[in-house]
Amino acid sequence: MFQNLAHAKAFHEFLQDTKFPDQPANLYDPVRYILSLSGKRIRPLLVLMGAELFDEKKIKSALPASLAIELFHNFSLIHDDIMDKAPLRRGQPTVHQKWNDNVGILSGDALLIKAYQQLSLCPADSLGALLPLFNKTALEVCEGQQYDMDFENLAGVSVDSYIGMIRLKTSVLLGCALQMGAIIAEANPCDQQLLYDFGVNIGIAFQLQDDLLDVYGDPGMFGKQVGGDVLSNKKTILYTKLKELVRGQDVVLLDHLLKDSIQTEPNKVEKMKELYTKYDIQSLAIKQKDKYIATAFEQLNAINVSSDKKQALFSLSEALTNRIQ
Amino acid sequence: MFQNLAHAKAFHEFLQDTKFPDQPANLYDPVRYILSLSGKRIRPLLVLMGAELFDEKKIKSALPASLAIELFHNFSLIHDDIMDKAPLRRGQPTVHQKWNDNVGILSGDALLIKAYQQLSLCPADSLGALLPLFNKTALEVCEGQQYDMDFENLAGVSVDSYIGMIRLKTSVLLGCALQMGAIIAEANPCDQQLLYDFGVNIGIAFQLQDDLLDVYGDPGMFGKQVGGDVLSNKKTILYTKLKELVRGQDVVLLDHLLKDSIQTEPNKVEKMKELYTKYDIQSLAIKQKDKYIATAFEQLNAINVSSDKKQALFSLSEALTNRIQ
Repeated sequence: MFQNLAHAKAFHEFLQDTKFPDQPANLYDPVRYILSLSGKRIRPLLVLMGAELFDEKKIKSALPASLAIELFHNFSLIHDDIMDKAPLRRGQPTVHQKWNDNVGILSGDALLIKAYQQLSLCPADSLGALLPLFNKTALEVCEGQQYDMDFENLAGVSVDSYIGMIRLKTSVLLGCALQMGAIIAEANPCDQQLLYDFGVNIGIAFQLQDDLLDVYGDPGMFGKQVGGDVLSNKKTILYTKLKELVRGQDVVLLDHLLKDSIQTEPNKVEKMKELYTKYDIQSLAIKQKDKYIATAFEQLNAINVSSDKKQALFSLSEALTNRIQ
Repeated sequence: MFQNLAHAKAFHEFLQDTKFPDQPANLYDPVRYILSLSGKRIRPLLVLMGAELFDEKKIKSALPASLAIELFHNFSLIHDDIMDKAPLRRGQPTVHQKWNDNVGILSGDALLIKAYQQLSLCPADSLGALLPLFNKTALEVCEGQQYDMDFENLAGVSVDSYIGMIRLKTSVLLGCALQMGAIIAEANPCDQQLLYDFGVNIGIAFQLQDDLLDVYGDPGMFGKQVGGDVLSNKKTILYTKLKELVRGQDVVLLDHLLKDSIQTEPNKVEKMKELYTKYDIQSLAIKQKDKYIATAFEQLNAINVSSDKKQALFSLSEALTNRIQ
């Protein structure tokens, strides 16, 4: 997916060189396990690219920050999976499934602290800017997760509330990752802000694409069960848009569909798709996604750096927001 | 319990002035709730006393660090209570009991991040020393909790392993609190280390006293059910010492007692106390506790500060390790 193999290699080696204690095994084995499941490693890559954009000599100095972001992301995955009772992560058993909830809680805690341990290894003169940004972002991610859980019990979540939630839960961490790189490369505050905003907007578009893939993804390419969000009544951009537009008898139909499970309505996904088609939800969602991409690109363009240096970020954004898997 | 009302007042006001957001309520209400249960506030007091010992003009600068320690302590209480399935904390329902496990996990996470947010408010020139100490300690507390849980399933835990566990789970945080104050007051590294070690040893004696109170405390004064550790087969200094000394038929008796519940053996606590008496466990445990206090006092005496400035710490140590509640 990503052209920049040098960054991926540098990060991989840095992660490999970071050792976790052997004992207590029930604390650190789950840490090693979740990190071994790898994933796309987008967030640490963004830290390195954020540094490279302003000063390519600072890429190496940005490695601890990139690892801090990846450790934080994995902490949030372990705890979110407990809260969501998810059995699988990246196709493998989740930590609480393989061990138990207690092991998941405590090894998640250890990962969060380990993230701060990496932060403390960042260049001393940037720590005063990195730490508050990281703290603010980490809290926002918790707030996003709380809103996501709160939304499960609310039928009527507006599109704006939904976007506010995914902004916190998913997008601010991408903005934070980029800005951390920019801080280490000593970018000016105005460019830092533009890069942060670019990351947040790309993050929102990334999540909207995820929502679209759930229903319109190629089952052979998309790593998850198609229609999984529909079956679990998850709030998505498709659902919240439909909910705002639906009228007349379709209101009743939607209500029924929400109460139905795959047992009582085997065609739940298909019937929901029919409603989406009737109200043109797919193209409305794509339009919304494109709006965030356009704003993001304006912000990236406005950064005071020659445009050839921005190409890697443009390409990555295209890949993330138009991906088919 | 504590003479130093000025410190208690300064900390209380600082905590009151620290506001948490209103929304999402399920994230921040539990944070406000656990902090309102108060407790003895020993740990933040130690930060302020650590600063005062070397430079009383630095007490105010140490307030964010004292709050960081208190927030961290409350994070660990929320998560430990989930893991231990504890219904009560400080006589009130635990967070997971009042809300649910998910709320406990996430609001605990938020408290841990909030602790780091306070750390980032500490004097910039001390952050480079505070952050690694805090990170190391936080990880050790997690390791201690993991060993504590691992020990539940082990019959034969040695006295040394037990003390190693309580050192991590309870004591290092007291040492860390004192050293953070010392760092902010710019104490020299040697005195910092002595103060840290003093705190750790007092912390161990404090926990040993807690173990003693469980069996020999005055039911009217001690805040918990007398014999609670015995009934739940908790590893304590009394149990681990007995386990090392028990011989002959008493081995079989102890084995039986461990398998017995209050239903099958209504006199479980009394029978265990008889074994403790037979092997003189109470006085052995007091001797062990006194050894840690003596070492701690040697370390405090060795600190290069006039002895009148150390009186408050001596008094607090006496109160903590000889307390009857």
